[in-house]
Amino acid sequence: MAGEQHRKGQEKRLDLSPFPIRTDLAREAHDMALGRRQKGEGVPGVHAEEREENGILTSWIRIEDQEGARELGKLPGLYLTLEIPDLRSQDSELQRRVAQHFSDQFQQFLKQAGIPENASVLIVGLGNWNVTADALGPFVVKHTMVTRHLFQLMPEQVEEGYRPVSAISPGVLGTTGMETSEIVLGVVERTKPDVVIAVDALASRALNRVNTTIQVADTGINPGSGVGNKRKALNKETLGIPVIAIGIPTVVDAATIAHDTIDFVLAHLQREMSQQNGKMSNPLDPLNRANVKELQSQEVPTETRSQVLGMVGGLDPNEKRQLIEEVLNPLGQNLIVTPKEVDAFIGDMGKLVADGLSCALHNSVTLDNVSSHVN
Amino acid sequence: MAGEQHRKGQEKRLDLSPFPIRTDLAREAHDMALGRRQKGEGVPGVHAEEREENGILTSWIRIEDQEGARELGKLPGLYLTLEIPDLRSQDSELQRRVAQHFSDQFQQFLKQAGIPENASVLIVGLGNWNVTADALGPFVVKHTMVTRHLFQLMPEQVEEGYRPVSAISPGVLGTTGMETSEIVLGVVERTKPDVVIAVDALASRALNRVNTTIQVADTGINPGSGVGNKRKALNKETLGIPVIAIGIPTVVDAATIAHDTIDFVLAHLQREMSQQNGKMSNPLDPLNRANVKELQSQEVPTETRSQVLGMVGGLDPNEKRQLIEEVLNPLGQNLIVTPKEVDAFIGDMGKLVADGLSCALHNSVTLDNVSSHVN
Amino acid sequence: MAGEQHRKGQEKRLDLSPFPIRTDLAREAHDMALGRRQKGEGVPGVHAEEREENGILTSWIRIEDQEGARELGKLPGLYLTLEIPDLRSQDSELQRRVAQHFSDQFQQFLKQAGIPENASVLIVGLGNWNVTADALGPFVVKHTMVTRHLFQLMPEQVEEGYRPVSAISPGVLGTTGMETSEIVLGVVERTKPDVVIAVDALASRALNRVNTTIQVADTGINPGSGVGNKRKALNKETLGIPVIAIGIPTVVDAATIAHDTIDFVLAHLQREMSQQNGKMSNPLDPLNRANVKELQSQEVPTETRSQVLGMVGGLDPNEKRQLIEEVLNPLGQNLIVTPKEVDAFIGDMGKLVADGLSCALHNSVTLDNVSSHVN
Amino acid sequence: MAGEQHRKGQEKRLDLSPFPIRTDLAREAHDMALGRRQKGEGVPGVHAEEREENGILTSWIRIEDQEGARELGKLPGLYLTLEIPDLRSQDSELQRRVAQHFSDQFQQFLKQAGIPENASVLIVGLGNWNVTADALGPFVVKHTMVTRHLFQLMPEQVEEGYRPVSAISPGVLGTTGMETSEIVLGVVERTKPDVVIAVDALASRALNRVNTTIQVADTGINPGSGVGNKRKALNKETLGIPVIAIGIPTVVDAATIAHDTIDFVLAHLQREMSQQNGKMSNPLDPLNRANVKELQSQEVPTETRSQVLGMVGGLDPNEKRQLIEEVLNPLGQNLIVTPKEVDAFIGDMGKLVADGLSCALHNSVTLDNVSSHVN
Repeated sequence: MAGEQHRKGQEKRLDLSPFPIRTDLAREAHDMALGRRQKGEGVPGVHAEEREENGILTSWIRIEDQEGARELGKLPGLYLTLEIPDLRSQDSELQRRVAQHFSDQFQQFLKQAGIPENASVLIVGLGNWNVTADALGPFVVKHTMVTRHLFQLMPEQVEEGYRPVSAISPGVLGTTGMETSEIVLGVVERTKPDVVIAVDALASRALNRVNTTIQVADTGINPGSGVGNKRKALNKETLGIPVIAIGIPTVVDAATIAHDTIDFVLAHLQREMSQQNGKMSNPLDPLNRANVKELQSQEVPTETRSQVLGMVGGLDPNEKRQLIEEVLNPLGQNLIVTPKEVDAFIGDMGKLVADGLSCALHNSVTLDNVSSHVN
Repeated sequence: MAGEQHRKGQEKRLDLSPFPIRTDLAREAHDMALGRRQKGEGVPGVHAEEREENGILTSWIRIEDQEGARELGKLPGLYLTLEIPDLRSQDSELQRRVAQHFSDQFQQFLKQAGIPENASVLIVGLGNWNVTADALGPFVVKHTMVTRHLFQLMPEQVEEGYRPVSAISPGVLGTTGMETSEIVLGVVERTKPDVVIAVDALASRALNRVNTTIQVADTGINPGSGVGNKRKALNKETLGIPVIAIGIPTVVDAATIAHDTIDFVLAHLQREMSQQNGKMSNPLDPLNRANVKELQSQEVPTETRSQVLGMVGGLDPNEKRQLIEEVLNPLGQNLIVTPKEVDAFIGDMGKLVADGLSCALHNSVTLDNVSSHVN
Repeated sequence: MAGEQHRKGQEKRLDLSPFPIRTDLAREAHDMALGRRQKGEGVPGVHAEEREENGILTSWIRIEDQEGARELGKLPGLYLTLEIPDLRSQDSELQRRVAQHFSDQFQQFLKQAGIPENASVLIVGLGNWNVTADALGPFVVKHTMVTRHLFQLMPEQVEEGYRPVSAISPGVLGTTGMETSEIVLGVVERTKPDVVIAVDALASRALNRVNTTIQVADTGINPGSGVGNKRKALNKETLGIPVIAIGIPTVVDAATIAHDTIDFVLAHLQREMSQQNGKMSNPLDPLNRANVKELQSQEVPTETRSQVLGMVGGLDPNEKRQLIEEVLNPLGQNLIVTPKEVDAFIGDMGKLVADGLSCALHNSVTLDNVSSHVN
Repeated sequence: MAGEQHRKGQEKRLDLSPFPIRTDLAREAHDMALGRRQKGEGVPGVHAEEREENGILTSWIRIEDQEGARELGKLPGLYLTLEIPDLRSQDSELQRRVAQHFSDQFQQFLKQAGIPENASVLIVGLGNWNVTADALGPFVVKHTMVTRHLFQLMPEQVEEGYRPVSAISPGVLGTTGMETSEIVLGVVERTKPDVVIAVDALASRALNRVNTTIQVADTGINPGSGVGNKRKALNKETLGIPVIAIGIPTVVDAATIAHDTIDFVLAHLQREMSQQNGKMSNPLDPLNRANVKELQSQEVPTETRSQVLGMVGGLDPNEKRQLIEEVLNPLGQNLIVTPKEVDAFIGDMGKLVADGLSCALHNSVTLDNVSSHVN
């Protein structure tokens, strides 16, 4: 990730980015903000920590105030991100380990977000079950244990270690004719859960995040997020109760592939030319994590930079945008793409999140007995 | 149907029926009520007419008052029933003809039920999409055209001949933890449709009705109906707006097969014995429609009847119930069964109802262009 | 089962059976043959043993010669049957226990059938994957571990404890236009497996067997078996290599429900009349296992029997057949039915058999690691 | 297409291409070959014609000899390509028009390929039905009319206007453990069709071809083609009968997006620098078809070119390959991607091809009655 952080930072310092970079992931936004600063300097208004263990990178980011929000382009709140680069290898041992870790971290997240242990929960599976890449939410709803009806119909028979959980897949605007937020608000008003957990498939900026990253946030679901068009917010303001969002990137805009490629080529050429001009004696692999510190400490004189830019044709943002469009038009009308193994990936990830949720929400449910609780 | 009507009547006159016969179909209830009366006599409080055309038997029954309701064991209201015995043959020509007929009749039904032509509609697909036999409602929702969002987002662009239609598949208690009625009421309160059309898979008394019968009623969905356990009503009383129910039998209780079989055997033995006793010279096929009148006009003397019953062991209702249980226990725990072709039947029937609804609700949609309106 | 055995025997002794009773299950055929004999007497040419453990009834039947074959109406060979009445309860603990037991027994079966431990295997999933009730074979193929290509492409990398396994779902005549046997024979000739394991969904005589019984036989698949129409045999004669058949009842003919019901009613009436005649002082529940011995030891005088039969109308086989047809016609054209939960049952049973097979065929695969071997 | 043709030609002339450009589509290969020649000059050994009508671009290419084969990197034979850029719009009217056009052209193709009108056909649906993007072949098999069994079982009842058609989905190596070619050869040897029609999902070089292009070829399926790994050929040489291949691009390698982007950026920079050097006064949009002629007629002096290349860093093929890898690694491990709407696209395209095939193969089947022939 540090390599990526560098890359994004690099492109920012050189001001090559044609678009304001938008990401649904606080983790990415934080990396970018770090990249815009001196090395070692933190982002004001943001508290972040991370650790890697067993192939799982866990990061907690709290955006504490409006300054942090501005810096990251995200709402103030708590963000938990799990990154598991190997998750697409379909290794069932790893999946189980991640499910357990997700369950533990999610339980901690609920605590930190101030959700009481016996709070009743409504799980909302956002997305369109007819489009596999957008079906993660409905898939999780299908496989998560629900218990609210037991509490309602035979409360005396519900054992210790469970809490009331209900779940709904409200569909999407195009198939229901109704805003998802209208449906969820109606259901919340009638069934009065204490908290909503909304699960959604996200569009990622980077193919390598697809089906390898899980983000949890206490800010809810806000306009513009997600694979489909879910235009109205699901948050404490609109629903009147806390909304915890679980988001997983499942698709990527083909444009970002082209966009990142162009940045790479330009960065490469700039380095090449710096070398030719004798100003940069050490052509660094921008993805080589070992070299990151060295690179960041390099002082590239301003005059060199502008010279380099002049030589590669001085692409201004408009030119760059046009170049990307030229590339993308023949590539196929700005398609949103997903890995061809999408069926298996959504199934694996959905099962992981569903099992993790069942374990996190009910103390009596563990990964060993979860399959006897749900079908 | 007259044969069946006879049979039900016969068993009633002889008072052999162990259970109060319950049916979701007004058509069946009316046949039974007719069977309890003199030939040619109508059922008080009930207005009924029927016609057969092109292999489709269409009947309109209006239960006008409490007396009719008591006689039929159904709520007062308007009931439309289409019976198409050949529908399971998967003849696509017939399916299209039935879809057109259903569309026409449903449009007429809306008129008779006092629903204005531009009334906004919420289609509710009841049932569990994970159980094919119970997935008819969700299937119809998936394939019916929705338009409400267009009226909301770009009203000026919606052409003539459409009305606002939204649709939802709320799931079932066991998968959501919430009563279907809670979800629907919440959605109705937020989105304010003028009328609800609820589509549901029903349990039939007779295998031959499965996937061959469509019932429309303006009484809504009431407790105890349906394949699954949908315990709360969806009707004008609970939702505050008219609820039109579309019900299609997709499963049958194995018990009814055994039950009907027993009635048949006893009726057969009675006839046999009557003959041996010289009292009944004309053993009739109880299903032979041509013989129905003759049979109904026969006077079987009371003394003969009791003698016959005594001879076959004088099964009283309790004995009969016990006999049925003896039969069913080894047969497999009172299973609900469905034809093994359930996947194809639900698909065909769901498409038929969805297309019929799209045509009936939007004047600009016809069977010729419906496939370009929905996917 | 003894109760059922009695019932079948009873009906045989009274010669009430209208049809030659056909069953795909050696277990049922053996029970019927026992019922035709004196108590305690075995069936000549048949060796049988059974035991019940943990809710699983395991029986091994070897039909040793032509006499045994005639008695049971089945080919000479080895038959293993597991009966698990509670399997439909969707208890994941029980499913796992049955998978382990099936794996152990199947391994033993292969040994008894003389299949070497390293014999290469072709698994054939018979049936139509578009019809859920008939999709058990294709489902098992999808979830069983295949390894033959690894042995072919990188033999040095295949570890100990595996054998070459390939798998195919050939489809059915109606969707391929080819006899399944033609396809399988072609594939066998090209890929030269040592043994074929054919998995098929069966039609059962009894609803209570549906999705609760697994039969393994070394006689292959023979004409007339199965849910669909699979008319040509798959056996050693046609394929040139041993064929082990795994069959699981998933559907039942509605006619057998009616048929069994009629037998019950008649048996009931006969007992009633015997009592009236003072000959039978102890009306027994024919399904009560505790009473079976007592019942079997009763001497019902022949004269009484014929008298009873005369009284209930002396149904001869033709009359009985007509009676059944009368019952079934209005019930719905001799439908084949399946429990409405067919989707879940096929999924559970298919997973159980697939996992059991993977464990039985590869020593290195266990129920604990099977999910990391297949997806 | 001309714009694309130019671009590919351009990159070839400048010899920037790091990889030998491989494409499954003769149409693309022909465009590239044209690009390497003088304007107006044809490719030796290749006969090509095309026409556009109603939004469908139809091209027929015959590679007549080894020289043509070398030029296009494709086997000698006949290639028919339909390109329908709007096909992804899910316009059912267009789909029907394309199905009709495909049927007509395919019938003509069979004639040109010397397949008799009554030749018996085996349709082979290649690919993995568990991976939606690879499931086109199995989908077509499921929806195409099969008749061979009718000819075999009741030849006298088959009416005029049909021919024997069988169909099989053999699965893929990873799920069967057998080479597809082994299975197909076995089936061909047993069932003796006159010709095989193999349907396969292809990997495209260009996103805009995905689900918009259909290629028919009489050269069969050859190693390296297709989405999955189908390593053995299916052609006249291996099967002994003609093999007609129908291929449809459904996925694209993310690497080609990056690759094309890099070519674009370099071409752009070169033009920019040429201008700075006063040699290129007219910076052309390389995708602007109107400018193609002008651009092609420009004489870029060799010395300028090398100078330009030197200035942009003189990327040699190795450097370019490394650059692409640098870009792709963080983007996600060389993923193969597919549009997120893959479920709907495969369904639409599969239905189109299946209906087109049914109509083309049977004179009595038309688009108006095809739905009554298949389910």
